[in-house]
This record gives sequence, C-alpha cells and structure tokens, in this order.
Amino acid sequence: MSGVEMLLLHERSNSEQEPEGGIVQLRSPSRPEARVREDGLPRPARPVADLALTALHNLPDFSPGDPLGDILADALADFAPFDSGDVLVIAQKVVSKVEGRLRQLDEIAPQAQATELAEHLKKDARLVQAVLDESRRVVRAENGVLIVEHRLGLIMANAGIDQSNVMQSDGGTILLLPDDPDGSAAALRLEIARHLATAPAIVIADSIGRPWREGAVGTAIGVSGLPALLDLRGNDDLYGRKLRVTTVAHADQLAAAASILMGQGKEGIPAVLMRGAYARGPAGAMSDLIRPSGNDLFR
Amino acid sequence: MSGVEMLLLHERSNSEQEPEGGIVQLRSPSRPEARVREDGLPRPARPVADLALTALHNLPDFSPGDPLGDILADALADFAPFDSGDVLVIAQKVVSKVEGRLRQLDEIAPQAQATELAEHLKKDARLVQAVLDESRRVVRAENGVLIVEHRLGLIMANAGIDQSNVMQSDGGTILLLPDDPDGSAAALRLEIARHLATAPAIVIADSIGRPWREGAVGTAIGVSGLPALLDLRGNDDLYGRKLRVTTVAHADQLAAAASILMGQGKEGIPAVLMRGAYARGPAGAMSDLIRPSGNDLFR
Repeated sequence: MSGVEMLLLHERSNSEQEPEGGIVQLRSPSRPEARVREDGLPRPARPVADLALTALHNLPDFSPGDPLGDILADALADFAPFDSGDVLVIAQKVVSKVEGRLRQLDEIAPQAQATELAEHLKKDARLVQAVLDESRRVVRAENGVLIVEHRLGLIMANAGIDQSNVMQSDGGTILLLPDDPDGSAAALRLEIARHLATAPAIVIADSIGRPWREGAVGTAIGVSGLPALLDLRGNDDLYGRKLRVTTVAHADQLAAAASILMGQGKEGIPAVLMRGAYARGPAGAMSDLIRPSGNDLFR
Repeated sequence: MSGVEMLLLHERSNSEQEPEGGIVQLRSPSRPEARVREDGLPRPARPVADLALTALHNLPDFSPGDPLGDILADALADFAPFDSGDVLVIAQKVVSKVEGRLRQLDEIAPQAQATELAEHLKKDARLVQAVLDESRRVVRAENGVLIVEHRLGLIMANAGIDQSNVMQSDGGTILLLPDDPDGSAAALRLEIARHLATAPAIVIADSIGRPWREGAVGTAIGVSGLPALLDLRGNDDLYGRKLRVTTVAHADQLAAAASILMGQGKEGIPAVLMRGAYARGPAGAMSDLIRPSGNDLFR
C-alpha cells in the first residue's frame, strides 16, 4: 500500500469512527451557531452555506491522453486540504475524452441486428452498431428511442454514446462511456492526492433521461471514496415508526446538484467541487445504485 | 394584480431581459475573477460558492393549519432580498401536514379492487384503497410494490402516501400529497413576499424511487417562479452540432440537491435555501416534468 493510499484510507476511517449516531450524519461545520458574534457585532446577514458548490472554471478543452488528474489537482490546490464532506463531481464526457473512448462512425460496419434496428428506429446503423457493442441487451426500441442495458449495468438511451462536443474537426466521432468509471474515479482521486497529499471523494456524472419524467438529470456513473447509496433501514423516524424511504441514492443526488452548475452546451463546466456533503457509510461503488433485474418491474 | 404580484413579475422579467445569449445562463456573481486582489493581497484560499445551500434549522414540528408561509418568512428574513437565482426547496411532508392532507386508516372501508390488490401484494387493504383514491390507474402491482399514476400525473409507489413522521399519537394516520402542489408553492411564495417584499422561487420536493436504479432521489412535485424544465433545443454545442441532451429537469435537480441536506428520519430538515441557481426561461409548472403517456415507453 502506498503512502497516498494509506492516507486516503486513514481519511475514510476517521470519518467512519466519528461518534455521532445514525447511519446518515449531516453536519454543518460552517453554520453559524450564535445570533450575535463574540465581538458583539450582529451576525452576518448571509450565513455561510451548509453545502457549497464551486465550479472549476478555466479548465482546458480536453483531448485524449491529457493528464486530467494533474490538471484537476492544480485547479483544486486552493481548496486543499479536503475533509470527508468534500466531493468533486466530474463530467463523464471529460473522463471519456482523456481516456480516448472515441470511435469513428466511418470505421463501423453494422451487422444484421443493427441494420434492422436502425431501419425500425430511423437511426444511423453505424451508431446503432456502436450502441449494441457497448450493451448487454436492448430494453426498448420504439418511437426512435433505443434504450439498452449497458455492459456496466446502466440502463440508458444509446448506451450513453455522445455525438456532441466531441471533436471540432470531425462529424463522425462518437464518445463512449469510460471503460471502468469507478476505476477512473479512483485513479483520479489517487492522482490528486499524489499532488496535494489530500483528495476529495469523486463522482463521475452523466446527464441521463428517465421513464415517466421529462428532462435529463445528472446521475452518478462512477464513484470513489464515498457511499453511493445510503441505507436508512433500521433508522427510526421521529416517532419511532418505519421509514417509507429506506435507501437514498446519495451519489445521484450529488451528481444532480453539480449538474445545476455544469449546464449543457456552450456553458459546459467539466468539474464542480462540493463541500458539506457528509454521509455516513462505507465507500461504495456505482453498481450499488443499479437495481438487480429480479427486483425491477420495468425491464 | 396586487403590488406583491407585480413585484414578483418584475423580478422574473428582469431576469429574462438580461442580454446574455443562450437559453440557460449560469452566472456566478460571487466568483472571484482575479488571481490577485486589487489591494495586492493573495486571493482568498476558498472562493465563495457559486451555488450555496443553507438548511433552515429550528423550524417547528408542523401540524395542520400552521401558518407555514409566516414561519418560512421569519426563517428567511436574514436572507432577503432575493434575486432570480434564489430557490427555496420545501419538503412535501411539511406542506401536506399544514394543509391537513391526513387520513385515518380506521375510517377507510376497502372496496373490491383494493381488497384483491392488497391480498396479491400483502399490503393493508385500507392503505391500498387510499392509494387508489389518489390515483388515475395502476401502473404495476407486483413483488409487494404498488406503482400508480397519481391524479397529478406523477408515477410513484403508493401514490406518495407516507406513514412515517406523520403524527406522534397515532399509528393509523397517513399523509397524502398536497392537493395542488404548484398552487401550494405559489401561495407560499406570495405569503413570503407579503412579509419580506421579496421571495425566492419555490420547489416542493419529495423523495421518490425510480425504475432501474436503487435509492430514492429528491424530485420536484410542485414549483413556483422558476422554469421546471430547461429546453436546450436549438442551442449549439461547443462545435455547433446538435446536443444529445436537449432538455434538463432543472426543478428535479434543485430538489435532489436540497435533499442532500434534508436527509431522512431523525435528521429531517424541512426547507433549504439555494442561492446561485440561475436558469433562463419562463416560469413553469410541475406538469412540465411529466412525460406525456404517448412518449413514454414504460407505462
């Protein structure tokens, strides 16, 4: 185990050993406790935030092979050291780009299933082939929409393949999800810690559509150093009865929050630092957020 | 039109008339622009947040008939005045309680459909009757899970009915969703503006489960004074091509972000103020977020 890995482990176990009860512990270290400050002046009109999100601006336009961890460490230097409430949310697109997860439509020869699906959906057969190559199976193919189970377990349209903001010079480049988003998150976390001797937890976020509801929402596709799912089972409510909601998709809520700042299109902000996102529980994985197919009524 | 309503309208149109291009405009008014301050001192080590969430602590345990608007206005007084990036996210449970959206299981006589479903699902037939009373139709009834289309259009388990944290003295009280959550949000916004001459936009949030993914996420069930859905269609990406994601569920992302602080069970925080959540577009409705059944592949 390297010194940096020990450091990360130490940070985590510190946070787990804190004596507060309950599985989820939301602390507000910066919340003003007093109505009047010690010096007798009135309290500040605008208390410091309990949860603070800061966009990392002025990052470059990334290309395959760029040292994303180094660049993030530089952008984060002013915020170090980090504690167990700090989470860096990174846009999937940036991670995929630096990892070179690109394919050229021109180089894809669609096979029979892709050609048939493409005709049915009025889509580019080469794109459909690329989607199938990333997927375990087709969940729905109707109304021009192709929803698949990605080999990572994620259920999403077009296997998360992106044609926007990929490359300037070329209309035929598509961008796949990272090969192992949890691994990408862990590697970036270590890289940041190597530079700064401390690192925030990391969530890799994508904007994903949902059944029943309009609009995409930021969703976690990779995590490192934090619980992805908070398990509240066994927690009593205020009156000692069973809670209706027993698990919370913590990493998805973090991804959604960061996506408010990340925006879309020209405003694209690739990374957002959140401070104050304390959650009790062992560090988890993206797969914690995927419902087993036996419990899923909508596959 | 009352003075308060004119004020609210004026706030909204100010925000819409700003000259920046694009449909979504994420501004960061508090972001430090310079690496070195004018006085030559180094920039602050921790820049002020672009998006800041503050939990409203120390609110009472609400009961039917409580003046929620008055209580929120008092809690918000230190934060006034508000601008178009300010959003107050309120937990559905609090709104439902003050509106008296309670039923007693003892007073419900289940009919044939409820009795049959309850047997199939191993649920309380009186609870199933209450769910059906709130619903347009059953979407799924399997594995002990009853998913319905609520008469508001929301698709959710048990029509959002809650048995936890309802009343201290009584095991048979259940809590329904507000009758008209957009109306509740608008009324609370006006009430706050009557006290403070200014009001944030409002989102009423519930924790809702999803197909495919584990864990509940904060979701908007009522909005006032902000766009619920951001439409990015027509926006070019960095390289002038079509965006993959064309609409963003802005109000859902706000609800999810606030839910990070709201927690569940004993930690329940009923309201969170967010500052910096700028979004371009006309004020919308909860129904903007509901996919029409003809476009929905999963009903």
